[in-house]
Amino acid sequence: MNIHRIINKTLFRLQKGAIGLLVYFDSRLYMKCYNNLLKRHGFNLKGTPRFIALSARFDDFKRITLGDRLVVSMNVHFLTHDYSFTTALISINEKPDTDIGILREIIIGDNVFIGMNSILLPGTIIGNNVIIGAGSIVRGTIPDNSVVAGNPAIVISDIRDYARKVKQRKDNNLVKDKE
Amino acid sequence: MNIHRIINKTLFRLQKGAIGLLVYFDSRLYMKCYNNLLKRHGFNLKGTPRFIALSARFDDFKRITLGDRLVVSMNVHFLTHDYSFTTALISINEKPDTDIGILREIIIGDNVFIGMNSILLPGTIIGNNVIIGAGSIVRGTIPDNSVVAGNPAIVISDIRDYARKVKQRKDNNLVKDKE
Amino acid sequence: MNIHRIINKTLFRLQKGAIGLLVYFDSRLYMKCYNNLLKRHGFNLKGTPRFIALSARFDDFKRITLGDRLVVSMNVHFLTHDYSFTTALISINEKPDTDIGILREIIIGDNVFIGMNSILLPGTIIGNNVIIGAGSIVRGTIPDNSVVAGNPAIVISDIRDYARKVKQRKDNNLVKDKE
Repeated sequence: MNIHRIINKTLFRLQKGAIGLLVYFDSRLYMKCYNNLLKRHGFNLKGTPRFIALSARFDDFKRITLGDRLVVSMNVHFLTHDYSFTTALISINEKPDTDIGILREIIIGDNVFIGMNSILLPGTIIGNNVIIGAGSIVRGTIPDNSVVAGNPAIVISDIRDYARKVKQRKDNNLVKDKE
Repeated sequence: MNIHRIINKTLFRLQKGAIGLLVYFDSRLYMKCYNNLLKRHGFNLKGTPRFIALSARFDDFKRITLGDRLVVSMNVHFLTHDYSFTTALISINEKPDTDIGILREIIIGDNVFIGMNSILLPGTIIGNNVIIGAGSIVRGTIPDNSVVAGNPAIVISDIRDYARKVKQRKDNNLVKDKE
Repeated sequence: MNIHRIINKTLFRLQKGAIGLLVYFDSRLYMKCYNNLLKRHGFNLKGTPRFIALSARFDDFKRITLGDRLVVSMNVHFLTHDYSFTTALISINEKPDTDIGILREIIIGDNVFIGMNSILLPGTIIGNNVIIGAGSIVRGTIPDNSVVAGNPAIVISDIRDYARKVKQRKDNNLVKDKE
C-alpha cells in the first residue's frame, strides 16, 4: 500500500515535470496534457480548467472537485487534511497512539480564479464566478459571484460590480493572453 | 569565520537532503534522524518534536528553542533577525556604515502545531498547547491553550473548546497517521 | 517573438544562477552583479538597491521602478499582471476568446524594506522610507515614512516613531551586517 502510493506519487511527479516543460512554449497544450494527467490520477474535473500552475499543490487527489474554466495560480495549496487535531486532542489529555487528522473535501465551482500563494483549508466550498485574491487563506463556504481576499479571507465585493467598475476606467492597460 | 559558516551550512544542507529521502518511506525514522541533526547543529530541543518539515527554515540555530511534541508544517519560517531596522535608522537621518539588525530569540512551548507557510517574527514566544493556523504571521507572546490564525495572527479560540467541538461533530471523517 | 522571450528568460535565469552562488561568499559583490544584470534586462533602477534576494520574482521587467537603498527579502513577488479580469468578464456573460489581463506599473521609492513572502499587487506605489512587514499583501499607494503590515496590508505606524522606540529600548541585541 505504502510502496504503491510512493510509486504512484513519483510517477505523477515525473509526468508533471515532463509536462511542465511545455508551459514555456504553449500554455494551451500544457493545460491539455495536465488536465489528462489529473484525470488519470483520480481527480474529479467537472469541465475543463483554463490553467493550473505546476507549483499548485493538492494534498489529496480524490477529495477535490474542480469546476470548469478554473485558474489556479502559482504556489496555491489545496489542503484536505488537518493534523492539528492531534495537538488539540493532546491538550485535553487524550493521548492518541498515532497522529489523527480531520479529512474534509474541497469543492470548487465554475469560473473561479485563485490567486498565487493562496491556501484553501479543508472543507472549503467555492461557488461559481469567484475571484480569490493573491495570498488569501480561505475556509468555509464562499458564495457565488464574489471577490474574496485577506487572511482570514472575506468577501470584499461582488464580481459583477468589479467587472463593470474596471470596464468603466479610462486608463486601463489591457493585455491579451499570457503576452 | 565566514568560510567556517559556509562549510557548516553546506554540510547541514547535504545531511538534510539525505535525511529528506527518508520522509517518503518512514516519517518516524526521518524525524529521529532530523532531531539528531538539529541537536548536533546547536538547536535547543526541549523534548522530542513530532514532525518538522524539511522545507521549514530557521534563520539561526542558537536562538530558537523548540518544545516537546512540536509539529512544524511545510515552508514555515522562524525569523530571529530583523534588518528592517537599518531602513528605520536611515529614515531618521542616521547613516550606519553597515546593515544593523535586531536579534531576538524564538521560544516554542510543548504540544504546538504550526501550520504551513506561517512566519514567526523575531521575539515570538509561544506557550503550551497551541495551534497556529496555516499562513499565520505571528509576533509577540501567544498564551497557553490557544488557537491562533490570521495576518496579523490573533487568538481565535481556546484549543480545548476546539477539541471538544470537533469531537461532538457527527460527520467527522478522521484519518490515522499520515495515511 | 515568443522564442525570443523564452531565450531571454532562460539567459536571465542562467546568469541569475551564476550570480546566486556569490551570495554565500560576498553579498556586496553579489548585489553589484545582480544590479548590473537587472539593468541590462531593462529594469528601471533609480539608484542602487542594498539587497534583492534571488528568490524575489518580478513578473515584468519594464513596468517596475525600484528606488535607492531598496531591500527585497526572499520570495517577494512583484505582480504587474492581473488575469483575474477574464474571470470577472465571464461572470457578466462576456466571453473573451482569449485571456485578458490588466497591466499596471509598480513604483518603489527610496529607502524601502520589503519583508519576506510579501506580494505587491499591480498598481502598487510605495513612497520613501517604508518598511513592508513579512507576509504583507500590498495594493494601492503607501505613503512616505510608514510601516505597513498585514493581509490586507495597512499602515501600522510611522517609521520614525518606530526607529526612536527601538533605540530607546535597553535590551536590544543588535547585530551588524548579515553576520
